Amino acid sequence: MAFAGLGQARRSARERSDLARTIEACRELLGARGEANSVAIATQAVSHYQRLSADSLKDFFTLLAEDFDPDPQRVLELAGRYAQTRAPQDLIALARAAEPPRQELLRRLIRAPGGTAAVVSMRAQLLGRLRTERGLAAVDADFHHLLSSWFNPGFLQLEQVDWDSPARLLEQIIRHEAVHEIDGWGDLRRRLQPDRRCFAFFHPALPGEPLIFVEVALLGSMPGAIAPLLERDQPPGQDPRRFKVAVFYSISNCQPGLRGVNLGNFLIKQVAERLQAEFPALRTFCTLSPVPSFADWLATVERLESDRVRPARLAALEAALHAHRTQGAAAHDAQLLRRLCAFYLLHTSSASLRPSDPVARFHLGNGARLERINTNADLSRRGLKQSHGLMVNYLYDLDEIEANHERFVGEQVSASRAVTGLL
Amino acid sequence: MAFAGLGQARRSARERSDLARTIEACRELLGARGEANSVAIATQAVSHYQRLSADSLKDFFTLLAEDFDPDPQRVLELAGRYAQTRAPQDLIALARAAEPPRQELLRRLIRAPGGTAAVVSMRAQLLGRLRTERGLAAVDADFHHLLSSWFNPGFLQLEQVDWDSPARLLEQIIRHEAVHEIDGWGDLRRRLQPDRRCFAFFHPALPGEPLIFVEVALLGSMPGAIAPLLERDQPPGQDPRRFKVAVFYSISNCQPGLRGVNLGNFLIKQVAERLQAEFPALRTFCTLSPVPSFADWLATVERLESDRVRPARLAALEAALHAHRTQGAAAHDAQLLRRLCAFYLLHTSSASLRPSDPVARFHLGNGARLERINTNADLSRRGLKQSHGLMVNYLYDLDEIEANHERFVGEQVSASRAVTGLL
Amino acid sequence: MAFAGLGQARRSARERSDLARTIEACRELLGARGEANSVAIATQAVSHYQRLSADSLKDFFTLLAEDFDPDPQRVLELAGRYAQTRAPQDLIALARAAEPPRQELLRRLIRAPGGTAAVVSMRAQLLGRLRTERGLAAVDADFHHLLSSWFNPGFLQLEQVDWDSPARLLEQIIRHEAVHEIDGWGDLRRRLQPDRRCFAFFHPALPGEPLIFVEVALLGSMPGAIAPLLERDQPPGQDPRRFKVAVFYSISNCQPGLRGVNLGNFLIKQVAERLQAEFPALRTFCTLSPVPSFADWLATVERLESDRVRPARLAALEAALHAHRTQGAAAHDAQLLRRLCAFYLLHTSSASLRPSDPVARFHLGNGARLERINTNADLSRRGLKQSHGLMVNYLYDLDEIEANHERFVGEQVSASRAVTGLL
Amino acid sequence: MAFAGLGQARRSARERSDLARTIEACRELLGARGEANSVAIATQAVSHYQRLSADSLKDFFTLLAEDFDPDPQRVLELAGRYAQTRAPQDLIALARAAEPPRQELLRRLIRAPGGTAAVVSMRAQLLGRLRTERGLAAVDADFHHLLSSWFNPGFLQLEQVDWDSPARLLEQIIRHEAVHEIDGWGDLRRRLQPDRRCFAFFHPALPGEPLIFVEVALLGSMPGAIAPLLERDQPPGQDPRRFKVAVFYSISNCQPGLRGVNLGNFLIKQVAERLQAEFPALRTFCTLSPVPSFADWLATVERLESDRVRPARLAALEAALHAHRTQGAAAHDAQLLRRLCAFYLLHTSSASLRPSDPVARFHLGNGARLERINTNADLSRRGLKQSHGLMVNYLYDLDEIEANHERFVGEQVSASRAVTGLL
Repeated sequence: MAFAGLGQARRSARERSDLARTIEACRELLGARGEANSVAIATQAVSHYQRLSADSLKDFFTLLAEDFDPDPQRVLELAGRYAQTRAPQDLIALARAAEPPRQELLRRLIRAPGGTAAVVSMRAQLLGRLRTERGLAAVDADFHHLLSSWFNPGFLQLEQVDWDSPARLLEQIIRHEAVHEIDGWGDLRRRLQPDRRCFAFFHPALPGEPLIFVEVALLGSMPGAIAPLLERDQPPGQDPRRFKVAVFYSISNCQPGLRGVNLGNFLIKQVAERLQAEFPALRTFCTLSPVPSFADWLATVERLESDRVRPARLAALEAALHAHRTQGAAAHDAQLLRRLCAFYLLHTSSASLRPSDPVARFHLGNGARLERINTNADLSRRGLKQSHGLMVNYLYDLDEIEANHERFVGEQVSASRAVTGLL
Repeated sequence: MAFAGLGQARRSARERSDLARTIEACRELLGARGEANSVAIATQAVSHYQRLSADSLKDFFTLLAEDFDPDPQRVLELAGRYAQTRAPQDLIALARAAEPPRQELLRRLIRAPGGTAAVVSMRAQLLGRLRTERGLAAVDADFHHLLSSWFNPGFLQLEQVDWDSPARLLEQIIRHEAVHEIDGWGDLRRRLQPDRRCFAFFHPALPGEPLIFVEVALLGSMPGAIAPLLERDQPPGQDPRRFKVAVFYSISNCQPGLRGVNLGNFLIKQVAERLQAEFPALRTFCTLSPVPSFADWLATVERLESDRVRPARLAALEAALHAHRTQGAAAHDAQLLRRLCAFYLLHTSSASLRPSDPVARFHLGNGARLERINTNADLSRRGLKQSHGLMVNYLYDLDEIEANHERFVGEQVSASRAVTGLL
Repeated sequence: MAFAGLGQARRSARERSDLARTIEACRELLGARGEANSVAIATQAVSHYQRLSADSLKDFFTLLAEDFDPDPQRVLELAGRYAQTRAPQDLIALARAAEPPRQELLRRLIRAPGGTAAVVSMRAQLLGRLRTERGLAAVDADFHHLLSSWFNPGFLQLEQVDWDSPARLLEQIIRHEAVHEIDGWGDLRRRLQPDRRCFAFFHPALPGEPLIFVEVALLGSMPGAIAPLLERDQPPGQDPRRFKVAVFYSISNCQPGLRGVNLGNFLIKQVAERLQAEFPALRTFCTLSPVPSFADWLATVERLESDRVRPARLAALEAALHAHRTQGAAAHDAQLLRRLCAFYLLHTSSASLRPSDPVARFHLGNGARLERINTNADLSRRGLKQSHGLMVNYLYDLDEIEANHERFVGEQVSASRAVTGLL
Repeated sequence: MAFAGLGQARRSARERSDLARTIEACRELLGARGEANSVAIATQAVSHYQRLSADSLKDFFTLLAEDFDPDPQRVLELAGRYAQTRAPQDLIALARAAEPPRQELLRRLIRAPGGTAAVVSMRAQLLGRLRTERGLAAVDADFHHLLSSWFNPGFLQLEQVDWDSPARLLEQIIRHEAVHEIDGWGDLRRRLQPDRRCFAFFHPALPGEPLIFVEVALLGSMPGAIAPLLERDQPPGQDPRRFKVAVFYSISNCQPGLRGVNLGNFLIKQVAERLQAEFPALRTFCTLSPVPSFADWLATVERLESDRVRPARLAALEAALHAHRTQGAAAHDAQLLRRLCAFYLLHTSSASLRPSDPVARFHLGNGARLERINTNADLSRRGLKQSHGLMVNYLYDLDEIEANHERFVGEQVSASRAVTGLL
């Protein structure tokens, strides 16, 4: 017991020392020494940081929040002066003072070899604490602000992933696939056949590390079910002239530290351009997407009193719900499910019923259009549980993207006649 | 006449329209459409921008200055609120409001293919106007702020330039060499022999475009004159075991739009590390540098009344100047010149006599030490005119860099005994 | 039945036509048209060849043997003339006439895109028929002659295979590993850890196709058993300073069509040089090899009358055999097995008892030395069956290779004292 | 004097020793040691060879001729046996015996690193001696035989040379351009603009060493003069849709040691295919070629008695010559020159008047057609002197190549109506 306690004390001492050194290196990095020799000091800071225990990490982030924020009085004073003079020099001074110093700290940390990877993993750590430590929100805003600037699409490199890619990369694709799990190398191989495509974004400061990737199937028509796309033994479609539709059937993030940094939007559009150039006969770019929150929503709605749902907008829903209740889950009529889903996706993005489906928000926010609702489309355990087997096609029509997005900002969902006609 | 006038009118109309379109695309880029489809809109904005005439450019920058700056009242209000609450959300709102919106504009512009190159060239245009249009200072501060973040050494790629490099790159090296002009391909070839090195920084978003490069000679001892290093017909030193000293004899920027963005400091240190790894026998990393402002300064000082120069600090100088005056320019005694130069470099960086020599400021600011002053070191026309033939060795001792820089910030110049002994 | 017969007839007609076209293209290739346009004609020939049925292949090779051989009378006449004159022009004419024309045919076939691959696969087909059709031996000699010239080590590219190699390549490594089967991607991954190496030879005309590869383990001492080397879950040795011994534990050919073309000898020596440069502390290069024919030989020898084995050389063996017989297989004493194996490897390469073990012949022919015989070294089913669990270390001492090989040519086996001491 | 003599003696001793070592290494390479360790011994042989003086080289080649040739009696005996038995094994033995052993020597020499380069340079040395030492013809035949096999187009890599190519390569292009001299880097740059192409063949065993290259101009119509193509300041044609004709205006060999190895034929056809794929609108592939021997021939013919020229075939020529003589060189009428040139190119390839023009032989032998004769096409000093300013277009019509070549073999020249109509 005594020894264990001693060990504990010693460990704590070492931990305190790691924390102290990390913070000291960070302070030095922002000072005069940091100007002369920032790469060397940033390298030390990163190296100390990487030894921090979970407890020390908590302290580290708290310090970032409390000690590396702007001086409120000075910002107020400079804001007052600028409001009076509107002089460029006063604006420069104000902007500098209002920016939390930890932003400059992060900018200097990424100068170290491996610094960018360290900052991205720091953010991942931070995100895990955000729920419980609300005080870190401003720290996270700084991370997000800078990472969005650094991981902008002008700096990203789009690479095709195929069977000639390094095994190390393919291993990561298998690990990170989040939508339709890849069951080993044989399964992956099918997804890299000539009638399939996989593209990933890379950042030059994170060599060999995919940030996000999308899997595409090249087909003759818009698909209504996922199973045939994943069928391992099906021979690949051979004739590129028959490829009319590019289906984005899976998109997965690989870097938890980049949450909220827009990558998917850029990836889908850049891939669409690349595919259009390779296959001029392609006419349609769409998704085959899950509706992961549909079943939950439906369960909730069924429990709601119908009078809480305002009558004007929800006539269609009420009828549908009525049929649904009277027939029971066993009689899940396809048309009924489609109507419920249409209602869910078209109307619940309004303030009253938020949050709606995250996948829908992503694609509609990108400017896609809700094109078709398919029943019996995903009969996997997860598909049945989350969405009663439904899947949705979102259509990316490059000429309509901006208008669709504007409509979405205005709380309207762009949808095809086939979908609006359901209600 | 009539036709010319008509042409003029038409041209102006087109110019106005280019300007209007550029601004419109910039506004769109910051709005809702820009969120959905920023790459496409940024591409248009860049393309319109590149057609702007000189007059329209002036208007464009003025608009950037006046229309894309923060709202003073709102910043003041949020600064007040934050000073009261110190709540994370209030800090987030304040930081967002205090940052000039043109920063977000630039961040979105570089999303376009070629967007980074466009922003760098925009900055070059802007710098040309800064002297006469002081109101643009805050705009320039925003460019500088973002470019420093994007062109940080963690994102830069260090590449060796040699005789196997693409001709297109070597052509740029010839064009941009700013210190010792490269007289054609034969001259360049000598500088890429096995006892010479050339390294350049590249940025992934500007492929094939060197940002800055340094030329290095590998020698047996610290050199005191430049001519032997540039001698074209001298056979290259062949035995790497004799390379004891790496001399940075030329460093040149290639991108006017990156002025003020620290690249040279990082380049020198990264190259030193690379060379040390390749040649473990290297003991000394130093420069052979011009003192481009020495002759001008000397001419000024000679004209100064000696009583304006305060006696306590300038005893050495007075004696030197006295000797200089009585002996005349023809009798430029080597020791005297060295003393004058030592005085110039050691003492004029204080506030009273600024600006001192820019090359000295660069290397001393990087943490180098003033090691040796060489006479008859550069007998070219320019060398004689600018510095009476003097050149200086700055020593990069990696273990001393931080301490040297701190001394420099404290207005002290780090110098060898050989140099301080001159006074 | 009628339809099937018709189909048969039609197929045969098509087959005959494929054969006729192949032969016609080959004849054209050797004629005047072939001089002007050989690449195009070779491309056709290859394409027709690839459609040949098994029956047609037989006819094709027979034609190669009979119609593309030298004219005996003309060779005889030219040989006579050269014996008389010894004039250069007569020698040139003789050499040209004595070379079978199918050699020129093959030289022109490989001009086609994919021609080299086609010729290698042609050889593989040919080898399969060699046993039953002795008349093809001269055809095969021509293939072997040319392939040895084309696949010489000066043209081969040595590449390291690791976890960053393309999946397509790794898939082939898994498929072709002939000595210790690779059980899927997880097993392969272990063999590519930092304390393991895999190298392959490639030929520029067969891009992406490994010809032969060797697997190496970096260890602290010469290993006596295979299982620890293949153990999948063992953490890799991390400290390169502890790597003293490089063990070639598996070498596999990937191209059946290159049988008899010496690749392994060159591969092992080039890999040894590469490893020595990477790890200067390496002291020993050896193998851990099976003795695949040992058990068979032992079974045969046991059946031999002892008087057929000449007494002078086989005293040791007789004693050993006697012990072996009296004690039975169950009592396989390690020392006894080692002695038997030593006898087998040291003495059976003499004319009287050939062929000895093929693996021994390969390494001893390369100039390696028989260093150590290990019992209980391979306890796999195959290891027990083929060699009663024995494995052997052959030592590659670069300074001794030539002398060892000369000894081997003189029918002497180079062996360590430890091995010779067994007898 | 004494010292010089001593030096001479010593040098000779060293020379003799270099020669002895070279030969010894060659003999070893063919013996048993060579089988075990050929790469190491070949490396020594190459290294000794490279130190040979001019005198020793002579001896070396003589030894190759006399000591490394086949045994005539043995060949005769084996030829006799094969003529009797026609057995495969006898054919194998015969072919082996009739092949000069120096072929195997060369095959083993190229196993050394740098061995292929050494053999190619050996051949260049050999070619320089061939005229005076006729006994080396059979040695040269062996070199040619093997080099043709090793430098076959299936092993060669076609690379585009452009302004992004390494300076080291471009330097070689400048040096080796044999047809229209490249006057420095500025001139080269023009030839690499977007409306020009340069392609070179490389061999994997000679990395970075171009073997042969061709320069191509992309134009709207078939050109009749060279000067506009070489005009340095002319802006490049920008619109690829206007490229209708690809003109091979220069083709140069870089490796004297590969003389007689067919590379140009393959290069032109492979480049034509590549260009056709890049510019589907290209309709015509032709040359703009000199007629380097025309003026010499004309001078000879003018001196000939007209009765030596047989009347039936030369009526046209006689009339032309008559006009030519009476009008004098000053009155070189364009039409007359064209007729003379047409006669020269169409009729002099017959046995009686050989050798005809080497450039014509090359292109006609490749299967091209004589398309057009242009006067005032090359007004350079050399052009006027060699061909009175004439240049010729040869047309490569891929569909006609084989037929044209067959006609050429039958001593007929394929020519357009425009050319045949001249006579």
